[in-house]
Amino acid sequence: MVATQQRIFFFGEGRAEGHGGMKSVLGGKGAGLAEMTNLGLPVPPGFTISTEVCMAYLTGGRRGLPPGLWEEVLHYMARLESAMDKRFGDEENPLLVSVRSGSAQSMPGMMDTVLNLGLNDQTVQGLIARTKNERFAYDAYRRFVAMFANVVLGVPCERFEQVLEREKAELGVEQDAELTVKDLKELIDRYQGLVRSETGREFPSDPYDQLQRSILAVLDSWMGPRAVEYRRIRQMSDRGGTAVNIVAMVFGNLGETSGTGVVFTRNPSTGVPGLYGDFLLNAQGEDVVAGIRTPQPIEKLATILPEAYRTLLTIADTLEAQYRDMLDLEFTIEDGRLYMLQARVGKRTGLAAVRIAVDLVREGRLTVRDAVMRVEPNHLSYFFFPVFDQQADAKSRFLVKGLPAGPGHASGRLALTSNTAVEMERRGERAILVRRETSPDDIHGMNAAVAFLTAKGGMTSHAAVVARQLGKVCVVGCDAIDLGADGTVRIGTTVLREGEALSVNGFDGKVYQGDMPVIESEVVQVLQGRMRPEQSETFRYYATFMEWVQAHQGMQVRANADLPDQAKLARLFGAEGIGLCRTEHMFFAADRMPIMQQMILAETKEERTCALNQLLPMQKKDFIGLYREMNGKPVTIRLLDPPLHEFLPKREALMMDIAQLELTTGNPIRLAEQRRLLARVEELHETNPMLGLRGCRLGIAYPEITRMQVQAIMEAACEVRAEGIDVAPEIMVPLVALASEMITQKVLIQTVADETMGRYEMRFPYHVGTMIELPRAAVTADQLAQAADFFSFGSNDLTQTTFGFSRDDAHTFLDRYLHRSAECVHCGRRTLDVKRLTCLHCGEAMTRPQANILSDDPFVTLDQEGVGSLIRLAVEQGRKTKPTIKLGLCGEHGGDPASVAYCHQLGLDYVSCSPYRIPIAKLAAAQAAIAARSAHQEAATDGQVPR
Amino acid sequence: MVATQQRIFFFGEGRAEGHGGMKSVLGGKGAGLAEMTNLGLPVPPGFTISTEVCMAYLTGGRRGLPPGLWEEVLHYMARLESAMDKRFGDEENPLLVSVRSGSAQSMPGMMDTVLNLGLNDQTVQGLIARTKNERFAYDAYRRFVAMFANVVLGVPCERFEQVLEREKAELGVEQDAELTVKDLKELIDRYQGLVRSETGREFPSDPYDQLQRSILAVLDSWMGPRAVEYRRIRQMSDRGGTAVNIVAMVFGNLGETSGTGVVFTRNPSTGVPGLYGDFLLNAQGEDVVAGIRTPQPIEKLATILPEAYRTLLTIADTLEAQYRDMLDLEFTIEDGRLYMLQARVGKRTGLAAVRIAVDLVREGRLTVRDAVMRVEPNHLSYFFFPVFDQQADAKSRFLVKGLPAGPGHASGRLALTSNTAVEMERRGERAILVRRETSPDDIHGMNAAVAFLTAKGGMTSHAAVVARQLGKVCVVGCDAIDLGADGTVRIGTTVLREGEALSVNGFDGKVYQGDMPVIESEVVQVLQGRMRPEQSETFRYYATFMEWVQAHQGMQVRANADLPDQAKLARLFGAEGIGLCRTEHMFFAADRMPIMQQMILAETKEERTCALNQLLPMQKKDFIGLYREMNGKPVTIRLLDPPLHEFLPKREALMMDIAQLELTTGNPIRLAEQRRLLARVEELHETNPMLGLRGCRLGIAYPEITRMQVQAIMEAACEVRAEGIDVAPEIMVPLVALASEMITQKVLIQTVADETMGRYEMRFPYHVGTMIELPRAAVTADQLAQAADFFSFGSNDLTQTTFGFSRDDAHTFLDRYLHRSAECVHCGRRTLDVKRLTCLHCGEAMTRPQANILSDDPFVTLDQEGVGSLIRLAVEQGRKTKPTIKLGLCGEHGGDPASVAYCHQLGLDYVSCSPYRIPIAKLAAAQAAIAARSAHQEAATDGQVPR
Repeated sequence: MVATQQRIFFFGEGRAEGHGGMKSVLGGKGAGLAEMTNLGLPVPPGFTISTEVCMAYLTGGRRGLPPGLWEEVLHYMARLESAMDKRFGDEENPLLVSVRSGSAQSMPGMMDTVLNLGLNDQTVQGLIARTKNERFAYDAYRRFVAMFANVVLGVPCERFEQVLEREKAELGVEQDAELTVKDLKELIDRYQGLVRSETGREFPSDPYDQLQRSILAVLDSWMGPRAVEYRRIRQMSDRGGTAVNIVAMVFGNLGETSGTGVVFTRNPSTGVPGLYGDFLLNAQGEDVVAGIRTPQPIEKLATILPEAYRTLLTIADTLEAQYRDMLDLEFTIEDGRLYMLQARVGKRTGLAAVRIAVDLVREGRLTVRDAVMRVEPNHLSYFFFPVFDQQADAKSRFLVKGLPAGPGHASGRLALTSNTAVEMERRGERAILVRRETSPDDIHGMNAAVAFLTAKGGMTSHAAVVARQLGKVCVVGCDAIDLGADGTVRIGTTVLREGEALSVNGFDGKVYQGDMPVIESEVVQVLQGRMRPEQSETFRYYATFMEWVQAHQGMQVRANADLPDQAKLARLFGAEGIGLCRTEHMFFAADRMPIMQQMILAETKEERTCALNQLLPMQKKDFIGLYREMNGKPVTIRLLDPPLHEFLPKREALMMDIAQLELTTGNPIRLAEQRRLLARVEELHETNPMLGLRGCRLGIAYPEITRMQVQAIMEAACEVRAEGIDVAPEIMVPLVALASEMITQKVLIQTVADETMGRYEMRFPYHVGTMIELPRAAVTADQLAQAADFFSFGSNDLTQTTFGFSRDDAHTFLDRYLHRSAECVHCGRRTLDVKRLTCLHCGEAMTRPQANILSDDPFVTLDQEGVGSLIRLAVEQGRKTKPTIKLGLCGEHGGDPASVAYCHQLGLDYVSCSPYRIPIAKLAAAQAAIAARSAHQEAATDGQVPR
Repeated sequence: MVATQQRIFFFGEGRAEGHGGMKSVLGGKGAGLAEMTNLGLPVPPGFTISTEVCMAYLTGGRRGLPPGLWEEVLHYMARLESAMDKRFGDEENPLLVSVRSGSAQSMPGMMDTVLNLGLNDQTVQGLIARTKNERFAYDAYRRFVAMFANVVLGVPCERFEQVLEREKAELGVEQDAELTVKDLKELIDRYQGLVRSETGREFPSDPYDQLQRSILAVLDSWMGPRAVEYRRIRQMSDRGGTAVNIVAMVFGNLGETSGTGVVFTRNPSTGVPGLYGDFLLNAQGEDVVAGIRTPQPIEKLATILPEAYRTLLTIADTLEAQYRDMLDLEFTIEDGRLYMLQARVGKRTGLAAVRIAVDLVREGRLTVRDAVMRVEPNHLSYFFFPVFDQQADAKSRFLVKGLPAGPGHASGRLALTSNTAVEMERRGERAILVRRETSPDDIHGMNAAVAFLTAKGGMTSHAAVVARQLGKVCVVGCDAIDLGADGTVRIGTTVLREGEALSVNGFDGKVYQGDMPVIESEVVQVLQGRMRPEQSETFRYYATFMEWVQAHQGMQVRANADLPDQAKLARLFGAEGIGLCRTEHMFFAADRMPIMQQMILAETKEERTCALNQLLPMQKKDFIGLYREMNGKPVTIRLLDPPLHEFLPKREALMMDIAQLELTTGNPIRLAEQRRLLARVEELHETNPMLGLRGCRLGIAYPEITRMQVQAIMEAACEVRAEGIDVAPEIMVPLVALASEMITQKVLIQTVADETMGRYEMRFPYHVGTMIELPRAAVTADQLAQAADFFSFGSNDLTQTTFGFSRDDAHTFLDRYLHRSAECVHCGRRTLDVKRLTCLHCGEAMTRPQANILSDDPFVTLDQEGVGSLIRLAVEQGRKTKPTIKLGLCGEHGGDPASVAYCHQLGLDYVSCSPYRIPIAKLAAAQAAIAARSAHQEAATDGQVPR
């Protein structure tokens, strides 16, 4: 650090040496205070020691403050004294300060703060004299001693609580407020005695000593284990450091004309303009947090302290104009005078984010392009799903948190089996299906339920994928849920039974006991024609915003949709085609399953063909529906993909059934039938079905399946074209590893397609392409491109094989990989309290948390280094062979904003995702396009143009 | 084709226009005939139409012979007439010729041949006059009509057989030889009548017409479906074409001074020098093939026709000197005079190949380098395994052919369960274990059996891998084997029961009913000290050859060995270290399994540690054994890799057991135990265990396992170093996908290693590396190399994930992929007769066979395009980060010669394979090094030096 660089920045008396743009030097809090000071807003004066001091201190081996700094601090303290007209350490008119950390990126609660600094047995007298409030002064002193001793001297705060509880017990007193001045004095003595016995030294009474040690403690807290872990989890750099803010104390607890509060400049749930928040009279920030007294809504302030309220309104407007965003403000009123303590951009729901962005454009504060960049893509899902009614005052109890796999809020009754869920639905009840994990057998129950909750499985487990497909609320991987054999569900100490009320938050993974009312999505109601746009303000905001998104969207967004009603929904959400129709999903319907089984059980080609002939008209009907819904937009149909045994009864179930039939010797015919079925199931049984007889291997082993499917695809196209709809089917061959597989299937597809078009006396273009979902396909893409009109990256399977992670099983270790930092090394449970570094289960302490192995679930966010480099290779190789080849991605990643942005970088033509993710993917695509254009423009002005 | 190029090449009268080096122009047969003529050997004169004529004919659209060619043929026929002093088509002294195909690469039986051409009702009279043998002449005529009609006119040969059988039945005659001249004349009439009715035309009587049409038929046969398919299967080019050889006929069936025979210049089974083969007096080649008369051993010829025998001996020596190899010769003796009809390099067993190569060096005919190149690496396995005793005259019946997965010959008694195999072994019987497929549960039975035979599974199934590991004979994937529930085995129509005699050939996959005596490997007996080298000539040849191999070997060869006795064997076979010790194999022993289960079932870390503490001394003892055996050579130890449920009872078995216990309500304690066990098994159950909780994921989830294993590795090293053996353990982390996984495990390994060395007050080098067996590891090898001292390519798993093929399941479709050309499109069975293009099962005909999807099993021979390019990438990236990184490969491919050669190209430091493959890998490595050096030298003389 160059000595001439400014290390301390003053703010106060209407001027600051720093400003809002200096976050990296002043930290977020310091920059906000400087900005507000410069705007002429009432901010208690103070000064900020820059983050560079922190880094110099740490890199210098923590050997005291850098040379000369303490002298500068003393100089700035003198300025502060003069600004406040008080003196630090003075017995008559003492200046008290807070010492707070504040880094460039927000790290809430991770670093240290000391309030009321400057108090000792002498200065407390001055505070009494000035405030005429003895009880307030001693209470402030008591709090200071405990806080300083904890933060600076390392005495655990529990010890102070124990002392307090003991004194209250001795006095027979229940509330802190009942303590008299005498009691408080006694308490301060006891606190100081505790410090003496814990540290072997006296509590420091010299305010400058207090100040210096507090500054060092704040600097140290940057590398405290909590902070380090917090940054590691979020992949934030350890460089940066924290600033130290030393600010004159103002007090909201000086009486009925004092108070403190937190407000948003607009409603953070709905985005409706106008202050939103609450305040407490005669209170400090701590009291608000403690929740002993109920705060009042901010509007009440208008009647109680109208002057302060008007000031707050003006300040809010000034700050919004400056920040061009909704803000989260903290203020304190001391003796009727309002002071701003913090201003930062406010967190909000998706509904609010869109409304605020649109309103800010309308208010002339934001450009459309900026508005598009302002909304987090995932936030759009708030528009499509039911949400808990914020107005309703429902009773509920938090139970457990899992992984949020299907967005939305839901409440209903616990169902333990799919059949129960179906029964409940028939009775008009909302079922919440709770299972260890789900399987294709549960589809009817999942269809009937409003939400599913599973003990196992990750973000791409069966339950999660189906949930997003069906638009159901879903929470998975709740390890803490224990499904008893006796029909109960145990969650921690709570035992639930079938039929009890549950509520599930699919946005954050939280599960509650009790029934929380939900309100349906207005956007979905309007899109489906059940509500008129005029009736829904929410819809109109959504529609405006999506128009802007569409105008900036680069890459196309298609839908993964298997059935006509899904295609319809996708189109309503703005899909530019179907990127993936999984034909096997058409066979899971109850009326089709038996025919599918017949096809699989067939022992001769004739039997198989007979079953396929029954499936043909069903498939064809579905395709006709899809083509009609998409009305000329591209439709990509994937040939049969999953292992055949997915359509057959479970092996174990059959074995059990046969064992019972054998023991009871009841039904010899059924026994023989079940034995035959088991024999075929055994034949099809695979150790690793994911890597077995599936994908194009099926179509090669049983060409008659491919033949039937292509016939259905082409007959449907012929018939829909006869209606005047321009269909050009895209037929996709799954799980290709070898160019020879692709060629074999392509020849068959062409034969059948030509045959079919001949019968209809028609001729129209159709395309044959392949999924790239195996590493071998990616590295031999140049060969595959010779036979393929398009590639669609099947990023789910490609992730599975690239990592060697089974999507069905990986949760057991993936979960650990992602949350290892919360795992106790002693008992192995994920019960580490990261703040205290002790285990909540076994109580053991750790010196530092373990490093996480993965920062993101690769089944949710595309792994750019590994899977991504294979995709990049395939893109390059494929385009080299066939420059016109169409490239898309159709895994779950197609709906993940970060992955969509990466696909844009890779130059893909489209992504395809489940219907409910389409608007999200479109927004992510628009943001990627805007960001690329900005980078391009910036580079252009630098004289460098990226391609 | 340029018209001035010579299109026809004459040979005869001691001189040929071509020579032995012109295989590509004259085909193999034509080149051989020219070479022998030039050497002054007795060869019937003739001429060869070049392969270029064939390509000109085919590319010209098969519109007759190229311009001017027929005139040239007539010119050469005139030269042939003059050389033979006979005239073609002459009624008094007719010249007869054979018209034979012959391409550059041997395609036995794939193209067409016509013998005795030139016969008609007139010329047959001349033949009678000249040979004074009316019956011979009419028999030759009859054979010619049938052969010409079949090859040239396309009349199926069965028709002629039917006519012959009918006539014999009418005459009441059983043998062809009983037919009189009158009968033969009648037969010729009937044959010609058949041709008339089948083709609607007369049989062509003009010899020149016969000649031209035969030449065209031979040219056409190059693109016949059989030939095309033959080439496709063997990846041979369709370019090349066939030559046409027109050769004067000589007859071995003119009486007791005539004859025909086939000899090898050395014994093809043993390599012992001296003619080996047999002959038939008064016979044509066809009669030898028909096998009606028993031929006599060639030595007998010395007494019967001593002049001809002496000539043959001289010729054999001349040709061996010329070809510098053992040859396979065809000859005919006409009236005491010997003619050579063919000379080509002879096929041989591995034993013979080595002896011949060594002898040829000693005879001064070959350099050592050439000798090393002469032996096919896989052929070495003949030295290590028992082989059927060629002397013994055992009765056996061929039953079925599977995939040869474990080399050697074995015979014994059929065992259907592992327990039976163990019992048989106890009774001193040799058991052949026949199973649908094997699992780790069968290990004790597999140990007891001499061979295993499975209905399912491919070359890298459990049975195959274990067989090669244990050195057992093994045939897998015998689809035709049907294991009945009643304890019988059905193979086609044969039904076998437990205890019946079976013989298995693990070199070619053939299975026989009956007991064929086998003799033990002398090499193994000598290596294991059970026989002295002086007692075994075979051993001495082997040892000499392997010394030469060692001298040329570039890359090192290590062993995959898990236990001390395997390590010992590996060392005896010349292993330069252990490349892969699979620590889990140490736990499958009967006394260790329960402790392993206890470890897995542990519910707390304490319980688990307690079980691990019991395993520690066992592991350590094994490592001590390994280190001692390898005596300072590198030992790579892989940490625990397989899914834990491999060590637990099967889920289905437990469920069945519990169901029975529940129904019988017999034993409540056992029921509770089994339920607890099932619960844990359920917890560990995975849909795709190959992609589940295994490899380093185990070590990360249960660090105490890694800790125990590293402690055992290092304690063993300390103790063995104290004995004066220089051990530097290489600790290998399996299934790494992420650099963070590697780093986490490496930190733990280092901690434990340092701790352990500290306790022993020692300090020595050890290395920590990783398997590269997932595509993600390959594409991020640059990152992994930062933490790894070495990479070992786990090509089995890398093949699985790159292709998305499960090694356990892929046989169902891989088998089809490899043999699709033999599959009937009508019935789907692999029963297509490729020669006749009809299905042996359903009898349907096909126009052409389907293309194979794969030419090689990627689990046997490394897939260079896909898996190979990932390995290449990892090699480049790894070396870029750490130029000194040691690189090896330890999958099954390490013992496959083609893969070893590829590893040499990639620049790996070593390959590692099962002990019995070590000499094979060493030979492959030596051949790769020699080939690379030759290429280097050739390039150097061209002025280009490859790196």
